[in-house]
Amino acid sequence: MKKQKFNLDPPKFLVLGFAGVILIGAILLTTPIATEDGKGLSFINALFTATSATCVTGLVVVDTGDTFTVFGELVILFLIQVGGLGFMTFATFLFLLLGKRISLKDRLLLKEAVNHLSIAGVVRLVKRILIFTAVIEILGGIILSIRFSFEMPVGKAIYYGFFHAISNFNNAGFDLMGGFQSLTSYVNDPTVVLTICGLITLGGLGFLVMNDLYEYRVSRRLTLHSKVVIYATLMLTIGAAIFIFLFEYGNVKTLEPLSFQGKVLGSLFQSVTARTAGANTLPIGDLTHSALLLIIMLMFIGGGSGSTAGGIKITTLAVLVAVVWTQIRGKEDVVLFRRKIALETILKALTVAVIGLFIVVIVTMILSITDRGHNFIMYLFEAVSAFGTVGLSMGLTPDLSPLGKILIVLTMFAGRLGPLTIALAITMRRRRDSFHYPEGKILIG
Amino acid sequence: MKKQKFNLDPPKFLVLGFAGVILIGAILLTTPIATEDGKGLSFINALFTATSATCVTGLVVVDTGDTFTVFGELVILFLIQVGGLGFMTFATFLFLLLGKRISLKDRLLLKEAVNHLSIAGVVRLVKRILIFTAVIEILGGIILSIRFSFEMPVGKAIYYGFFHAISNFNNAGFDLMGGFQSLTSYVNDPTVVLTICGLITLGGLGFLVMNDLYEYRVSRRLTLHSKVVIYATLMLTIGAAIFIFLFEYGNVKTLEPLSFQGKVLGSLFQSVTARTAGANTLPIGDLTHSALLLIIMLMFIGGGSGSTAGGIKITTLAVLVAVVWTQIRGKEDVVLFRRKIALETILKALTVAVIGLFIVVIVTMILSITDRGHNFIMYLFEAVSAFGTVGLSMGLTPDLSPLGKILIVLTMFAGRLGPLTIALAITMRRRRDSFHYPEGKILIG
Ligand SMILES: [K+]
Ligand SMILES: [K+]
Repeated sequence: MKKQKFNLDPPKFLVLGFAGVILIGAILLTTPIATEDGKGLSFINALFTATSATCVTGLVVVDTGDTFTVFGELVILFLIQVGGLGFMTFATFLFLLLGKRISLKDRLLLKEAVNHLSIAGVVRLVKRILIFTAVIEILGGIILSIRFSFEMPVGKAIYYGFFHAISNFNNAGFDLMGGFQSLTSYVNDPTVVLTICGLITLGGLGFLVMNDLYEYRVSRRLTLHSKVVIYATLMLTIGAAIFIFLFEYGNVKTLEPLSFQGKVLGSLFQSVTARTAGANTLPIGDLTHSALLLIIMLMFIGGGSGSTAGGIKITTLAVLVAVVWTQIRGKEDVVLFRRKIALETILKALTVAVIGLFIVVIVTMILSITDRGHNFIMYLFEAVSAFGTVGLSMGLTPDLSPLGKILIVLTMFAGRLGPLTIALAITMRRRRDSFHYPEGKILIG
Repeated sequence: MKKQKFNLDPPKFLVLGFAGVILIGAILLTTPIATEDGKGLSFINALFTATSATCVTGLVVVDTGDTFTVFGELVILFLIQVGGLGFMTFATFLFLLLGKRISLKDRLLLKEAVNHLSIAGVVRLVKRILIFTAVIEILGGIILSIRFSFEMPVGKAIYYGFFHAISNFNNAGFDLMGGFQSLTSYVNDPTVVLTICGLITLGGLGFLVMNDLYEYRVSRRLTLHSKVVIYATLMLTIGAAIFIFLFEYGNVKTLEPLSFQGKVLGSLFQSVTARTAGANTLPIGDLTHSALLLIIMLMFIGGGSGSTAGGIKITTLAVLVAVVWTQIRGKEDVVLFRRKIALETILKALTVAVIGLFIVVIVTMILSITDRGHNFIMYLFEAVSAFGTVGLSMGLTPDLSPLGKILIVLTMFAGRLGPLTIALAITMRRRRDSFHYPEGKILIG
């Protein structure tokens, strides 16, 4: 029986840390120097924007490029970077900069924050995370800067290039293009589409997988986790792109007017962005119901654990599919890539999926009450987009009522921390079973 | 290695049996004596109606009362009774009538059909099922006949009374009221509402629970399965009724014009009907989005295993909730009513829920392609209603395209047999694991 007075456990610490960062960001966005009209944002809109940036979501109540000054945009970019790296990783970065010694307790916190599998080498991993991030964002920024310099002054092109590289690597979905149009004017531009698809996909794998890929040169092997994330990402991205291509092929408001190359690039981009990123090159509100439902599923699934993605995560889906496949075939062991999946992993996957589904349904239901008069799919889409920290919208976000905005703020927050962290942070001290009940029979299905 | 030539296993036998009954019913409904216009139904509409009746769903492409002769209506009623009892139970009934000896192989089939927990006493249970059904349907039929005799000739009142008693005890959702209005004219009638609520609820518990309740007089104890079904049914029915009351209180098209009693009866009836029955006293298409989403959830959940209900079943929900609750509290054993839930039960529940969700999403997606031009929630509602063999509709059913009709026929069929039976019937011979892989680590959530 240990006493735990005023001793924040890791999940609680993460929740409060994120909340603090968001609040500071929101206050900065209410200042007159943050907006071009010199009035600053209202607090509710500032809170929404800061939450959306810190939770790397990308849902916007005001258009980023049209509304904010460069100062306001840099606040948003800073929040995106803090949120993307995770504020714990960011805090370590500050520690390292200041030359501080990192205690065992800090290491335990870090372990939770980066979702690392063992505590060994956590600090080395965090250092690598920072190097990876810098290298990838600089590379992406240079490519985009060059591309943008063909159509705007060099200074602005560099700013735009790096803003969009950072925003997309962190899967934040913010853009500076104005008029809520996102990247729709680049739908048929291979340089922009493929560069940003690359940035999004790398960011959505998660740092552990990136680290694993980096070490592959020497170790010549990938962890089970990395294999699952990479394989599932490939399957989902290609599969969803093919279906979006088929669903939208004849849609005069989306793919129909484009060349074959444009159709392929448009399908690919929407497939890649849907699992977490939030930028779009096709007008989301004009997609067919079938494509929208597919995107809703992708948004709910999300990317890799320990990535900037929200949702239930791609590994959760993989484990659930493996369980179903095992059950249908009447096998005992749940197996992925020749490794048995532990029972506790299966139960965790089930829990994450059920809590995720519950959050999405409740948020959709409340939205339909606080913001009457829209189509049902707009509520569902908005709720899943917020939970998956995706940032795609059928156009509901700017029209949200104050209550609707607060609801979406809470949903983005829950989505970024993940259903399990939220649940663990809420519940009281956990106790192990003190005794066991006998087994009972129950009929299923 | 046993040879299994031409040897149908129970799931395959059930699938083929149901299909045979449906086909015979469909052919009867195409005959000129089945419809009042003397032309018979088109084959696709007859197939739809026969499937809806046999799968005790209640979705209708033509209004039952307006379209069919008494012969047509009796064909439908017969299909409802065969489908409700399950054709295996029905076949046993025929065996018993003919004085045939029931072989061990037949008993194994029966075990599968009634979802009984052990093979012992299966025949006795089936006898009881028949007696329960007869007693409850006759009681309900008498009460409804008396009620209807106040507003129609006695002969017609008896016919209406028994038709609606049988239809509702079997949770079939078919009615004779005409104009697709279902029971909306009885929304404020306590006799009709409470009698039918009682019939629906008893039918939705499943015969095992009814048998358990019957034996309770002597045994003074209920099985774990019965406790879970009864408790969850109570919680869901009352909880959902309260929320429907709140959501619809101010809706001028539904509860608002009614007295307080009418509001309570209307909320209760829609709550009871949603988990599987399919009759309605409020116009479903006019409900608020929040109430519709709640009803969609109830339809997906369904009633007790081995009942006339579809959906993932109420025990599946209970097990999933118990797993989540256990995980959040950091406990090891998943416990319901002081009994540990076995791992295989948990994996089965997970499988049923995932397959159910998958079916619903795919059907919704295909419907939105085959039947363009409707609101998204109408597709979702129709898909879940068919999967849950509920029979409520926002009005899409009569407007379905031929492809949409075939899709809903298949969905009702899958919903009635249950996701697991379908999956087991599809897959090849099952093999146990011949060896085990080592355990691997993977990150979730
Ligand atoms: K995002
Ligand atoms: K029904």
